[in-house]
Amino acid sequence: MKRPTILPCLPAALALALTVTGKPAFADTGPAASVDPRIGTGGPGHTFPGATVPFGMIQLSPDTAMPDFKHAYDHAGGYQYNDPTIMGFSHTHFSGAGHSDLGDVLVMPIAGEVKLDPGDATKPGSGYRSRFSHDDEVEEAGYYGVKLSDYDIHAELTANRRVGWHRYTFPAHKPAHLLLDFRPSIYDYPGKVLWSNLRVRQDGTITGCRTTRGWAPGRVLCFAMRFSQPLITRALYNRETNVTYRGFRGPGNQPVDQDASSGRALEGVFDFGTLDKPLLVKTAISPVSEANAIANLDQEGQGWDFDAQRANATTTWNRALSIIDVSGTAAQRTQFYTAMYHTMLAPTLSMDVNGEYRGPDYEVHKADGFDFYSTWSLWDVYRAQQPLLALLRPDLSSQFVRSLIASQQDSPFGVLPIWAYQGLETWCMVGYHAVPVIANAYLAGVRGFDAKAALKAMVSSATYSAYGDLKDYMKMGYVPIDREPEGASKTLEYAYDDWSLAQMAKAMGKTDIAREFEKRSTNWRNVWDPKSGFMRARLSHGEFRTPFDPGSAGYGTDYTEGNAWQYSWYVPQDVPAMISAMGGNAKFVAKLDALFDTKVDPAIFKNVEDITGLIGWYAHGNEPGHHVAYLYDYAGAPWKAQQRLKQIMDTQYSGRPDGLAGNDDLGQMSAWYIYTALGFYPVTPASNEYVVGRPFVPRAVIHLQNGRTFTMVADYLDDAHPYVRSVTLNGKAVDLIHLRQQDILKGGELHFVMQAAPPHAN
Amino acid sequence: MKRPTILPCLPAALALALTVTGKPAFADTGPAASVDPRIGTGGPGHTFPGATVPFGMIQLSPDTAMPDFKHAYDHAGGYQYNDPTIMGFSHTHFSGAGHSDLGDVLVMPIAGEVKLDPGDATKPGSGYRSRFSHDDEVEEAGYYGVKLSDYDIHAELTANRRVGWHRYTFPAHKPAHLLLDFRPSIYDYPGKVLWSNLRVRQDGTITGCRTTRGWAPGRVLCFAMRFSQPLITRALYNRETNVTYRGFRGPGNQPVDQDASSGRALEGVFDFGTLDKPLLVKTAISPVSEANAIANLDQEGQGWDFDAQRANATTTWNRALSIIDVSGTAAQRTQFYTAMYHTMLAPTLSMDVNGEYRGPDYEVHKADGFDFYSTWSLWDVYRAQQPLLALLRPDLSSQFVRSLIASQQDSPFGVLPIWAYQGLETWCMVGYHAVPVIANAYLAGVRGFDAKAALKAMVSSATYSAYGDLKDYMKMGYVPIDREPEGASKTLEYAYDDWSLAQMAKAMGKTDIAREFEKRSTNWRNVWDPKSGFMRARLSHGEFRTPFDPGSAGYGTDYTEGNAWQYSWYVPQDVPAMISAMGGNAKFVAKLDALFDTKVDPAIFKNVEDITGLIGWYAHGNEPGHHVAYLYDYAGAPWKAQQRLKQIMDTQYSGRPDGLAGNDDLGQMSAWYIYTALGFYPVTPASNEYVVGRPFVPRAVIHLQNGRTFTMVADYLDDAHPYVRSVTLNGKAVDLIHLRQQDILKGGELHFVMQAAPPHAN
Repeated sequence: MKRPTILPCLPAALALALTVTGKPAFADTGPAASVDPRIGTGGPGHTFPGATVPFGMIQLSPDTAMPDFKHAYDHAGGYQYNDPTIMGFSHTHFSGAGHSDLGDVLVMPIAGEVKLDPGDATKPGSGYRSRFSHDDEVEEAGYYGVKLSDYDIHAELTANRRVGWHRYTFPAHKPAHLLLDFRPSIYDYPGKVLWSNLRVRQDGTITGCRTTRGWAPGRVLCFAMRFSQPLITRALYNRETNVTYRGFRGPGNQPVDQDASSGRALEGVFDFGTLDKPLLVKTAISPVSEANAIANLDQEGQGWDFDAQRANATTTWNRALSIIDVSGTAAQRTQFYTAMYHTMLAPTLSMDVNGEYRGPDYEVHKADGFDFYSTWSLWDVYRAQQPLLALLRPDLSSQFVRSLIASQQDSPFGVLPIWAYQGLETWCMVGYHAVPVIANAYLAGVRGFDAKAALKAMVSSATYSAYGDLKDYMKMGYVPIDREPEGASKTLEYAYDDWSLAQMAKAMGKTDIAREFEKRSTNWRNVWDPKSGFMRARLSHGEFRTPFDPGSAGYGTDYTEGNAWQYSWYVPQDVPAMISAMGGNAKFVAKLDALFDTKVDPAIFKNVEDITGLIGWYAHGNEPGHHVAYLYDYAGAPWKAQQRLKQIMDTQYSGRPDGLAGNDDLGQMSAWYIYTALGFYPVTPASNEYVVGRPFVPRAVIHLQNGRTFTMVADYLDDAHPYVRSVTLNGKAVDLIHLRQQDILKGGELHFVMQAAPPHAN
Repeated sequence: MKRPTILPCLPAALALALTVTGKPAFADTGPAASVDPRIGTGGPGHTFPGATVPFGMIQLSPDTAMPDFKHAYDHAGGYQYNDPTIMGFSHTHFSGAGHSDLGDVLVMPIAGEVKLDPGDATKPGSGYRSRFSHDDEVEEAGYYGVKLSDYDIHAELTANRRVGWHRYTFPAHKPAHLLLDFRPSIYDYPGKVLWSNLRVRQDGTITGCRTTRGWAPGRVLCFAMRFSQPLITRALYNRETNVTYRGFRGPGNQPVDQDASSGRALEGVFDFGTLDKPLLVKTAISPVSEANAIANLDQEGQGWDFDAQRANATTTWNRALSIIDVSGTAAQRTQFYTAMYHTMLAPTLSMDVNGEYRGPDYEVHKADGFDFYSTWSLWDVYRAQQPLLALLRPDLSSQFVRSLIASQQDSPFGVLPIWAYQGLETWCMVGYHAVPVIANAYLAGVRGFDAKAALKAMVSSATYSAYGDLKDYMKMGYVPIDREPEGASKTLEYAYDDWSLAQMAKAMGKTDIAREFEKRSTNWRNVWDPKSGFMRARLSHGEFRTPFDPGSAGYGTDYTEGNAWQYSWYVPQDVPAMISAMGGNAKFVAKLDALFDTKVDPAIFKNVEDITGLIGWYAHGNEPGHHVAYLYDYAGAPWKAQQRLKQIMDTQYSGRPDGLAGNDDLGQMSAWYIYTALGFYPVTPASNEYVVGRPFVPRAVIHLQNGRTFTMVADYLDDAHPYVRSVTLNGKAVDLIHLRQQDILKGGELHFVMQAAPPHAN
């Protein structure tokens, strides 16, 4: 099945409302057929186009480059749509990260002469990489295919939870090889590989482990790989030069070119002769050991039926995506289901079939009765992606919470993950946003975890004084900028996290804890500067830091990946109080308008990664803004929210490869899209409430896990009717800032009626 | 209990025979009291003086220096007797190695100001190291004490199998600290630490793991440590500079100075305030994980009674050493029991209480019903140390064989260990001498292992074509020097190993295998050059390599740590054939005499480590010569053997710190001493026979594990009666080159009668 070349940009709101004009492409194979993994692979989206299943351990995808970490921002997903060559296929990727790592176990099929280095993408034939054309690519949920034109090899990938499947069809007349390059990874740099082993076992299984000092340092990743065709010859190389000390291994007493090799720059070349049928490769990984990788491969990688694996992957995606039946044009469905797809690529399973996983203490642990998941981009996903999954997948949300608690219990610091993957901590970004993830899940009714242990873990994280100057925050009520960078944003985020903790404590009847953290949640006031009208960082002696420029962003400022314009809206736990502090509704709305309408030269952010998707000062490409458009609702101007949402949907999302205006951030950008398309958004996760915006699809039916269905219907939805005339839940008018999760969970119909003009003009 | 300063040199043979002149020092506490761990800690012996129990995992000893690997040969045991300072106490050491590593988990007690670097030994106060005096040292089997004079700290060490115990008595008025330096190790060099973690747990337990690229690269060693006094403050440091990439860890977002730290240059400082009682420290290690180290500490490190631990260690040594009751002077007993002590320091336990160990594939395995031992200096210990243990400790020998088989089954190459420790392979030295270790054990009647699996492992090792050019050896019958270094010695050693394999195969009724390897065992003939009268390496086209100098040794020659004079006697599997090839008894004896009597300038070996203990060309300090003196017996000149043995015992061993003329090599030098003192030696391990020399102690009773006793008595033994007049076993004359192991195992009495003149002069 060959996918058509990419559709021209069709903003969702341009599509016809209520009726679907035609049968969407691939509708016969379910919602998975509407997924276009190309979206986000160009521009700043940083998604990957390869094959995976929901929350799978294996994310097998082509890599076009793995540059030096100073030049790798664009390649955080391993693939950039405009790159001319593919250097290989690796088994682990982040979907839409701003920083990166992974790209583990890179393999490249080679027909004919084998070159051992990838070479220069601008110089064909200079290395093992190959040119390719987008015309020869097929991207589907769970499948990726491409022709490697330098070798005339048809490469295909699919995956299940723990096994990546490759099918390489070689030209008949040329010797077939598979190169395994165990040196590079995404965000690469010399010395990143601390140690590695490669081994060819008696039964032909290739295994290895590699320890890298990347984003999460000291990371161990092992694999086991098998081939469908007999191995004729093989060679293992250690490409290291200037090894300080090799012990007594002399040139002749060097068995490493045989069955195994160790070192810091290993490669393996596996030779199959000329083949009259495709070479299949299957690979399992493990964060623990080669033995576990083999067990994973044994248990979840049986047989050699690539097509059956691909069909299973499609079925898995169809099952996962059909939780929401969405109506609309093919383009609308593509954007919607691709966004859903993108919300299901993290966290990922990080546990072997025997239950073993690696924790933040680098030790091996055994998950007792749950699945351990990692890949926690928490600063991003606590906002909408995790609330979405708590709504749609309470079964999984429960596993996620158990994984977070386990991580906290395994942590040498006794804290919940901050930005963790494969069980290890990176300490990236700010806040302790595992706290609102857990609080939100609990208040959304997710159960199946030890709430007491969860609360203990949350308090432990929120009081770990060595982290992000919590010591001063707890004493002074704010993070002083002379002692800790980004003091304003940290204070704001801590205060919100504290509030979410208090909500869960309250719900559990732990009034002491609730009281303490309710109090802490008002700390946002300590960084509010009524004079300038912005949230600002204070010095430890109490004064605001000067000079102050509300436009400046980046390292050294008061804020995390933002400026005063972008960060000053961050009081989701008490928006009315914030509006009041800002001078009341009219002033608040005027300030919001200024946020969106000020003419800003994007060049001022050219040295700040992540601030993308600009509308005035508003930066939809980064998370601090994600709740902001909905704030108009609180100030009595919901039609302005509706305007802004349309503006954002029209300009920041499309069905093109560059269709994400910023890093997808492990599904957060896409979760914003899903919620917004459905007409509501979790401005305050853990409040158990949503704020109503406006829908962008005519109808969506959510099949809740409790057996009920919740339907969103939008009458008269089209580009000419961008405003909400009325919105009712089961016939009753909805409070726009208090649409309650439990009312959704009861099932029923959320009914929007759209109109042409804003209601205040009526 | 304070030991007297070291005794003046009293060669064993100077002592009075038959009667013990006085009660030996410490006789009231059993044979352990006769052990003097100082022997071998000076000069080339490379033993360590610290605390350990037989074959224990922990070998806790002071380190005087851990220099760069280019300057570290003298410090292979961490301690050199003439050094002026102690830099700390570490938990793992090799006893008498020629190369080295280990020195793991180095701690130093500090009173007062803490310096973070060891400083210069020649500049007092320049670092944390302290001066000490030998007058303030106490060394015993299982105990070490010293005063650290720069701090006025009394430091004491003891150990059991898996736990090292420290007792530090600080001056009362100064703050007490313990520094843990996780950076250095023995044979140190920049970059050797690949990765490490340190952690202070909630209960005060300190844990960590370190991966090093040393002699066995990629080695993981973890530990758990507890203190008897409450920790007041602690700091963890990462002393790395120029870290390429730290991820997002900024200065303020850096919790590593708190509960845990990771990196490549870690240190921990633990503060206890002023103490009015000693600080006790107990440490367990694990090759697997911190969790396992904790379990080891929990199970084998209970309580805080240092004196009880010390008493247990003494008891353990007394039990181990009292297998032989030896009579003689105090000096004789000291040398004899210290030699026995030195034969019990390897292999060492390398398995956690849960049965887990790390194998040569870097993976974690579980020992199924046996104890996994490692530290295999096989090129050395197959000669006499392992045969001695097969005789004295068949229970342990059986565990050793099971450990070897397990290693082979875990090996990525499918081979038995070559030179392995903590389960990992170094590929050091030549041959496949685990084969004769197993064959010797089997033929000595050791059971309790799977002989079929053992034979399979042996054949697998002997036919692994990539190792040491076995490919050519199997095809051509010798190792061609133009394809592989040291072709002559390799051919000789392979041929002997092959013969030992054949003996076991024959005993098991595997005649095909026996025939194949019997044939291979004659390959020594292919390196015998009748023209020059030496064993020499051939080129692949068949000619001997020229030019040829029988005196030259070292890298690039035909031999391994030796020259033609030293290596040309290596046909233990068929000495009569060798004598015949060399022209018969008279010529053979003359050549042996030339070996010992030629005047050789030791300076010609100044660039070759390990060739020490010279008598003419004969080098007792290295293993290729260890069987040579006994060869006179085969040529009908046993009195010449007796002369040479006295010459060697008189000049190559003493009770002084420099009392070992060469590296003890994990007990091989000492095992030679034991056998020779008893009057016989295993010239051909796996032959199940000994060659009779002459005894050096008047009486020794071996308490065999089968319940029988075997007694050696030497009448008229003194310096004036150095020759054997008669030797009988249970009254019957003994065949000097065929004293059978099974006759010893039957128990009885080996009765020497000594005389003044050589028998041929009678």
